[in-house]
Amino acid sequence: MAEESTVYIGKKATMNYVLAVVSQINAGSDNVCIKARGRAISRAVDVAEIVRNRFVQGLAYRDVKIATESLPGHDGGNANVSSIEIYLSK
Amino acid sequence: MAEESTVYIGKKATMNYVLAVVSQINAGSDNVCIKARGRAISRAVDVAEIVRNRFVQGLAYRDVKIATESLPGHDGGNANVSSIEIYLSK
Repeated sequence: MAEESTVYIGKKATMNYVLAVVSQINAGSDNVCIKARGRAISRAVDVAEIVRNRFVQGLAYRDVKIATESLPGHDGGNANVSSIEIYLSK
Repeated sequence: MAEESTVYIGKKATMNYVLAVVSQINAGSDNVCIKARGRAISRAVDVAEIVRNRFVQGLAYRDVKIATESLPGHDGGNANVSSIEIYLSK
């Protein structure tokens, strides 16, 4: 069965996450999901494109999902944050 | 035939683009494409989610495409920039 692994994108340098995704694929994952919220969404797209164009041949986008997550804010209320899930498959 | 209109996301405030998308839909477009490059990608996702959740009922994601564009850089070389195209349909 195809394994699925997830890489969460945060505030580190883009190449850290590229390495994480490539490592997952080299370790045998045929499906990788890249998840990000808010400002990190742009970086998630960069990571996916760099992995596809420079490191792993034949990797395709299976699906790209966009949603809104409601997170508890600093003031006790809720803050809505956009999120993205990029599914890559070999 | 369903019309398709495109809204390009730049550096203005998110609500400017939300208004642009909502205006297109109210003017009769059943299909709207939201395009962005680089850092504006996060904003494009915000715009799509705000339009869907707050302004236009029954709007669905038809497709989300991710790509890399090669732009001429300041130093005469080319800079690769990630891009996103979010297709919304009524």
